[in-house]
Amino acid sequence: MIKVGVVGGTGYTGVELLRLLAQHPEVSIEVITSRSEKGIPVSEIYPNLRGHVDIPFSEPDVKTLSACDLVFFATPNGVAMKSVPELLEKGVKVIDLAADFRLKTEAEWEKWYGMPHACSHLLDEAVYGLPEFNRDAIKQARLVANPGCYPTSVQLAYAPLLKNGLIDASDLIADCKSGVSGAGRGAVVANLQAESSESVKAYAVSGHRHQPEIIQGLKTLDDRADLMFVPHLMPMIRGIHSTVYATLSDTSADLQAVFESHYANEPFVDVMPAGSTPETRSVKGSNMCRLSIFHPNKGKRVVVLSVIDNLLKGAAGQAIQNMNIMFSKKETLGIDSIALLP
Amino acid sequence: MIKVGVVGGTGYTGVELLRLLAQHPEVSIEVITSRSEKGIPVSEIYPNLRGHVDIPFSEPDVKTLSACDLVFFATPNGVAMKSVPELLEKGVKVIDLAADFRLKTEAEWEKWYGMPHACSHLLDEAVYGLPEFNRDAIKQARLVANPGCYPTSVQLAYAPLLKNGLIDASDLIADCKSGVSGAGRGAVVANLQAESSESVKAYAVSGHRHQPEIIQGLKTLDDRADLMFVPHLMPMIRGIHSTVYATLSDTSADLQAVFESHYANEPFVDVMPAGSTPETRSVKGSNMCRLSIFHPNKGKRVVVLSVIDNLLKGAAGQAIQNMNIMFSKKETLGIDSIALLP
Amino acid sequence: MIKVGVVGGTGYTGVELLRLLAQHPEVSIEVITSRSEKGIPVSEIYPNLRGHVDIPFSEPDVKTLSACDLVFFATPNGVAMKSVPELLEKGVKVIDLAADFRLKTEAEWEKWYGMPHACSHLLDEAVYGLPEFNRDAIKQARLVANPGCYPTSVQLAYAPLLKNGLIDASDLIADCKSGVSGAGRGAVVANLQAESSESVKAYAVSGHRHQPEIIQGLKTLDDRADLMFVPHLMPMIRGIHSTVYATLSDTSADLQAVFESHYANEPFVDVMPAGSTPETRSVKGSNMCRLSIFHPNKGKRVVVLSVIDNLLKGAAGQAIQNMNIMFSKKETLGIDSIALLP
Amino acid sequence: MIKVGVVGGTGYTGVELLRLLAQHPEVSIEVITSRSEKGIPVSEIYPNLRGHVDIPFSEPDVKTLSACDLVFFATPNGVAMKSVPELLEKGVKVIDLAADFRLKTEAEWEKWYGMPHACSHLLDEAVYGLPEFNRDAIKQARLVANPGCYPTSVQLAYAPLLKNGLIDASDLIADCKSGVSGAGRGAVVANLQAESSESVKAYAVSGHRHQPEIIQGLKTLDDRADLMFVPHLMPMIRGIHSTVYATLSDTSADLQAVFESHYANEPFVDVMPAGSTPETRSVKGSNMCRLSIFHPNKGKRVVVLSVIDNLLKGAAGQAIQNMNIMFSKKETLGIDSIALLP
Repeated sequence: MIKVGVVGGTGYTGVELLRLLAQHPEVSIEVITSRSEKGIPVSEIYPNLRGHVDIPFSEPDVKTLSACDLVFFATPNGVAMKSVPELLEKGVKVIDLAADFRLKTEAEWEKWYGMPHACSHLLDEAVYGLPEFNRDAIKQARLVANPGCYPTSVQLAYAPLLKNGLIDASDLIADCKSGVSGAGRGAVVANLQAESSESVKAYAVSGHRHQPEIIQGLKTLDDRADLMFVPHLMPMIRGIHSTVYATLSDTSADLQAVFESHYANEPFVDVMPAGSTPETRSVKGSNMCRLSIFHPNKGKRVVVLSVIDNLLKGAAGQAIQNMNIMFSKKETLGIDSIALLP
Repeated sequence: MIKVGVVGGTGYTGVELLRLLAQHPEVSIEVITSRSEKGIPVSEIYPNLRGHVDIPFSEPDVKTLSACDLVFFATPNGVAMKSVPELLEKGVKVIDLAADFRLKTEAEWEKWYGMPHACSHLLDEAVYGLPEFNRDAIKQARLVANPGCYPTSVQLAYAPLLKNGLIDASDLIADCKSGVSGAGRGAVVANLQAESSESVKAYAVSGHRHQPEIIQGLKTLDDRADLMFVPHLMPMIRGIHSTVYATLSDTSADLQAVFESHYANEPFVDVMPAGSTPETRSVKGSNMCRLSIFHPNKGKRVVVLSVIDNLLKGAAGQAIQNMNIMFSKKETLGIDSIALLP
Repeated sequence: MIKVGVVGGTGYTGVELLRLLAQHPEVSIEVITSRSEKGIPVSEIYPNLRGHVDIPFSEPDVKTLSACDLVFFATPNGVAMKSVPELLEKGVKVIDLAADFRLKTEAEWEKWYGMPHACSHLLDEAVYGLPEFNRDAIKQARLVANPGCYPTSVQLAYAPLLKNGLIDASDLIADCKSGVSGAGRGAVVANLQAESSESVKAYAVSGHRHQPEIIQGLKTLDDRADLMFVPHLMPMIRGIHSTVYATLSDTSADLQAVFESHYANEPFVDVMPAGSTPETRSVKGSNMCRLSIFHPNKGKRVVVLSVIDNLLKGAAGQAIQNMNIMFSKKETLGIDSIALLP
Repeated sequence: MIKVGVVGGTGYTGVELLRLLAQHPEVSIEVITSRSEKGIPVSEIYPNLRGHVDIPFSEPDVKTLSACDLVFFATPNGVAMKSVPELLEKGVKVIDLAADFRLKTEAEWEKWYGMPHACSHLLDEAVYGLPEFNRDAIKQARLVANPGCYPTSVQLAYAPLLKNGLIDASDLIADCKSGVSGAGRGAVVANLQAESSESVKAYAVSGHRHQPEIIQGLKTLDDRADLMFVPHLMPMIRGIHSTVYATLSDTSADLQAVFESHYANEPFVDVMPAGSTPETRSVKGSNMCRLSIFHPNKGKRVVVLSVIDNLLKGAAGQAIQNMNIMFSKKETLGIDSIALLP
């Protein structure tokens, strides 16, 4: 059994992590912390966990966390970095579901996150936890930076094209659509059902923190990578649909075959049959990413459609996948459940 | 032209009132106040009003309001009562869309609203603004207490039965369902789309402020009236569906005919053809109440279905209807638009 | 391993059954039949099953089905009864998720379902598969009639009250709210998203097939049971919320304690803490029924709130629960997953 | 009064047209035809029209239609073209809300719509009814081809850029999102609430009929225009959000000023303040198109966000706008109502 602690279990990423951990056959949840909800049973805030997670939230405390094999941070950005060095020192492994360790450059991080980094010396060591890119490094890692939701869906969509040199990496466009759970559980007027349902809008068009994260990842495949990224809010709870565009440098390639071959051995990437389009609901509650490739009229443009559940493959599911890899468990353990449809 | 002021225009009742007033041919909006949004153009918060309402919110101020013929209060409970006496004194008429003047008894009011009443001497004078009950009194009123949303739908459903002595008034059950706009525009976690959509729940089962208001109204028709009232939150923005139950004292009456006759001359109550069921969407954006009557197997039970748009006939629309009556305008003026369907 | 066949796997009950069976550790799916979709891979219609259920639909055929230990019918009403006698004769057990064997009286069945019954001699033998009522009989059964969704939620709500003689059984009212998946996967205009979303309506107010089913069940607890039942359609996919009303014959009982004691050992009934209200989303994707009891002002009325996922405890989940009981497996096997929230 | 007839009033475009016509002060609805619903009152199918439109559907019949000043076709593609020549001959003006007269080239039309054209000699005369492009021609027109919903939103987004020669016209990408009412009122499984809500998907990625329509329109501004167009289905009823991308040939232009100047006198195009993003709900039930322009980091890419209500500016509202122009009425008459928000 892996002894795990969860820091900051009150947001949507946190509750999803608890749902998955509570059902994972090789995990024992030792402690769940929340400063604001200290002493309150987890199941009082999340009634779906009644009978499954019966411990209360406790005050964050490095001593207790140090008794764990692994600590997940499901906290706001800027929190994990304050405790991670001490935990690592004590031999505890860490997976951060926030953004503290996602960018490799301190200056870049500080520019996008608007605060000084508390332990920038760890940025280099931290492994970016996208298993399809970095499985071997994750296996050895003490500290994993779990990717953002948009970055996961976009990088998986572009990877086979970039890896095989098929597109102009300098001119990419990702038009992404996310459900409202991606906006978090904060009490914000804009996310009230009476505001956000029955409407669609773009946001952060001038610049979103996931853009540098995506570009950094794509540059590992082609260092000319550059990206226009426009996120949109959709009137649904879960799911991301990324529609990514590129200009082909070679219009003769069999793109369907390229994708099928690239992802042949990936348990959580499903290349859909040619001509079909993936729906976000086909991955609701599942850790799967489904991809479709279109090459209209065999012209210069390629379009890839990529869907994930933002709380699974886009957050908590991928964190468990990383845990499984780090602790030499079967990679799909505890995260192979079927999407809930309808 | 009726010169109107709106106090507290930032909630859903407020914006709906502004939408209707801006399109009303006999109204001139003189002032819209909001302490928190002072100086900000109304259309910045409500982009649908761009080009239609171009004045900014201003600081509440009795002097400015006194220049109006009529002031609407779309404020939280307990606000209107502080300014109403002074306005009335200056000859300004008032329609309060909150609950300050809905209950006739000071003790009852203070019990349910948890504060002392600032001008209980006006409770008696205030006219309860349900035109189908009190049209003549409204015509003469200086001060109108605009009814709550649930009370409007429930009272209209029971009125023909009580008026005609057809049911046991002491044993009524109203099972009511409301869209989330009824919960207001406050930044509350429970009303986030990720929380309230795709779910149904009851609330305030032990007691809701609208219960004494309904009972008070029904007692004007039968003083034995008593009611079990359970409100539920529905995953949609607008609409109330009340399903009201009663035991017939006379099972031989032609209930359909009773309802059709009772409401024959009401412009905003539509008795549906026998056997049909009303949908809340059939009144979305309209001031109409639609009713259907069922008498299963000609047995002892009668069921009435009643739908309204909580922001129109349940709030702002009814307020305009009251204004039209108070100022001797055609009762339907500015509120006869057709529901938006689909 | 239990060898199972599924007849009629294309509706929502069918796909939910397949989702659960595919993840059940003691089940092997031998055959899935659908006349209309013969030859088509199941995962083509239900992409969530890609990689989990890889067999195609086949023509219904008693010979193939006879090789199974258990056959589930997820067919329209009136289909199962044509094949069940032959299957039973060959030693195959049957769970019918439709209504063919739910009512005990042939005349009653034919009145409500509008067709002659093909094997009314089995009505008596068939066990009504509500484990909380009939666990022992289910254990011995060859043929289980899986309960309807509304009946499950309503019977579990009334059982402790009737069992303990606390209410007037002759005067019950159940006001029930269901998500649209309960209306099935038929191509019907009324169930288009542009029609049914953002709206609430009642239906079948004059009489619904689940009413006699509920009354029959409640009569096993108190033979005076009679019920007014009004179902409503809610703008959400999954979930039933039943609000049931009764008049107490004894207002002094500690109702919370009665319920907690009655359901103390039930794995799939959760009595919520006093004062809390259950949300349908707290059981989405789970086989749990959650109940709350209210006794406002210690008066004559009691209200019980009961929520289930109509496709789990209201259909496929309960069918698996019955299977587990019939085949002496742990009752929670394969159906103990946590609700998906948010 | 303009005497109008409506052919095919049972779809969503039809009911929206009736809603607007019934409230238009200068229109008299003479006849509404529907072969399938002949004899049935319009308000039986659309209860929102109860009390506003009280005539029944009648059999389509050129004689009756000939008594009108104007006939609207809200029929499936390929229907209007069979009757239009005869109506024009009799002096009746026609606005076709379907696609029969949108494309100028017979071969192109037949390729995309898969049938021979019944009156291709009228393709040249027909005026493409986008007032912001063709107001003068509409004024003189006998026959107006009302634009598609996506084409309206996309053309209005690109027009100022193309008109001013600011972008590379040969390399345009429009990523468009539509509510489900755009898919029509047909009984189709994919559009059931249980299927399409809580999910997002792309469709027709390989080619959509609106693509040639958009390109044809944009070519009137720059004949090198070419477009990649990907439509997506959103889980909401009304609204289109088009996110359009282009590469600037001149990165120094003040794009905000270009748009504000271009649309300064347009009553139904609202250029939002710099930095703000339009929400589809801000135009729900309104004929407005709202645009925002983004030029991230003053780089080579420009992004324009364009929202409309697909049933108003994208269909019936624009048809009324065209009618007003054709009959020399005030252009905003009957279509200046404020969007319904929330």
